[in-house]
Amino acid sequence: MAWMLWAGGRTVTMVSPDSPIFPRIVIVGLGLVGGSIAFGARRAWPSTHVTAVDRESVLRAALSRRAIDETADDVAVVAGADLIVLAAPVRQNITLLKRVAAHAAPSAVITDVGGTKRAIVETAEGLSESVTFIGGHPLGGAAHGGFEFATAGLFARRPWIFTPHDASGTDALERLSAFVTVLGARVATMTALEHDRLLALISHLPQLATTALMDVVGKGATASGLRMAGQGLVDTTRLASSPADVWRDICATNAEEIRGALDLLIEQLLEMRSELERAEIVDAMFSDAAGWRAELMKGRD
Amino acid sequence: MAWMLWAGGRTVTMVSPDSPIFPRIVIVGLGLVGGSIAFGARRAWPSTHVTAVDRESVLRAALSRRAIDETADDVAVVAGADLIVLAAPVRQNITLLKRVAAHAAPSAVITDVGGTKRAIVETAEGLSESVTFIGGHPLGGAAHGGFEFATAGLFARRPWIFTPHDASGTDALERLSAFVTVLGARVATMTALEHDRLLALISHLPQLATTALMDVVGKGATASGLRMAGQGLVDTTRLASSPADVWRDICATNAEEIRGALDLLIEQLLEMRSELERAEIVDAMFSDAAGWRAELMKGRD
Repeated sequence: MAWMLWAGGRTVTMVSPDSPIFPRIVIVGLGLVGGSIAFGARRAWPSTHVTAVDRESVLRAALSRRAIDETADDVAVVAGADLIVLAAPVRQNITLLKRVAAHAAPSAVITDVGGTKRAIVETAEGLSESVTFIGGHPLGGAAHGGFEFATAGLFARRPWIFTPHDASGTDALERLSAFVTVLGARVATMTALEHDRLLALISHLPQLATTALMDVVGKGATASGLRMAGQGLVDTTRLASSPADVWRDICATNAEEIRGALDLLIEQLLEMRSELERAEIVDAMFSDAAGWRAELMKGRD
Repeated sequence: MAWMLWAGGRTVTMVSPDSPIFPRIVIVGLGLVGGSIAFGARRAWPSTHVTAVDRESVLRAALSRRAIDETADDVAVVAGADLIVLAAPVRQNITLLKRVAAHAAPSAVITDVGGTKRAIVETAEGLSESVTFIGGHPLGGAAHGGFEFATAGLFARRPWIFTPHDASGTDALERLSAFVTVLGARVATMTALEHDRLLALISHLPQLATTALMDVVGKGATASGLRMAGQGLVDTTRLASSPADVWRDICATNAEEIRGALDLLIEQLLEMRSELERAEIVDAMFSDAAGWRAELMKGRD
């Protein structure tokens, strides 16, 4: 049995469950995404050997769920890997990349799964030419983080953006694209700047707007007022329980683009504020928003 | 069979399915809320006679689903009613109140279900003393508006706020409270100003923030960018498809309180904007938001 894959719309790669694209994988950071990559790789290629680096409690859980074969407490273990996945928060990934690069085999492909791409790609550009790094970002959809929610199906039909730079090499991009396509993802490629600008709008701004909204509503309404709130507020603020450790790094490494996005939102809120009593303006804003919402929902459940 | 009800925590009312609290109900505006009141009243008291005023297509659907007994094309029909429910958008309810007041029997109780309360209560205060009006607001939770989504269970365990004013009378409040309690709702009472201030925070601000967010993200990311967005944006922007006709009236009749709420949000976003690179501030904002989110979710599914 073999799968034919059209990775990135350009390349045809033949893959078979018997021949892993990356026989030995090391994943540093076994949360929702790192754990789901482990499950996905082992489901697709049962012979894949997966080693993980994380806290001991997480590693124990991963071994007992058979997500991984081996644990390690030092990134030097990457020396034997064909694929190295950095799946910690962004700034930890940047630190890890420098350490991993010193140990990785010249044939190894290194990628990350962080929510911003310019900072880590800039770091990669400063490394030796023998290091093959391609920034990556699977656009997830789970309500909860952490290894306990990891599943092989996490990436099904979801975009996985790669941000290759000059030194990345097309062979590595093809192999990585084939790998994540087998995991179920849909590959897109763009520059790190394009990625960070897009994500500032579709991910970072919604997160920060939700955090700000929940703060303001909570402080203003207090517990007794929140008890009255309907399903609208509940849905709107789901992201308010996102973990600070992930977002602190995203804010720090994409501050410029996020500021631009926040400015657009603040400007829109100020316009609303001054036009509340003008029905035709309110109507236009609601109509525009409903139109974009319909666009967002196209092709989704 | 009889039900014992503790309405508002103070009063015990005995009600039985054989003796409707309001034997003849007229509902003006048969959308999600008006339609659900019709279904709920007929489920609780099968002998209740419900008359509705709305567009012909809606009335036909309501007759065929047995939500109502009779249709009318003129509010003069309220002359025979024990309970008159105004369930159109807020400013239409205000206009309707004046017309209905001229036809209603002195024993009739008039209420509304609009999302703001000061404007209609002020109108009620200007009416003849023989008119009994109590502002009401069931805090809904359905994702979709319109009669087609109406259901007797809409109000189960949801708050229903009444905003009695000096002329409302305690007897009418007790009967209304018992009525909506049997429909499954939990009664709360407060002044119209307290209501409008609270709703500006827990309902109007989340709606407007979502509308503004969807506008900004849609225009910035365009259709191709929206295709990349994850479940976070999808959940966060559910309210962006809310109908303008409802919200145009809410904005116009609660502009002052909404401006105050928007100011708090804008202030918070500006603080975020300037502190993106300060991890301890970002951490504190996320931690506060997660705390309020946990408070919001207490006692919910």
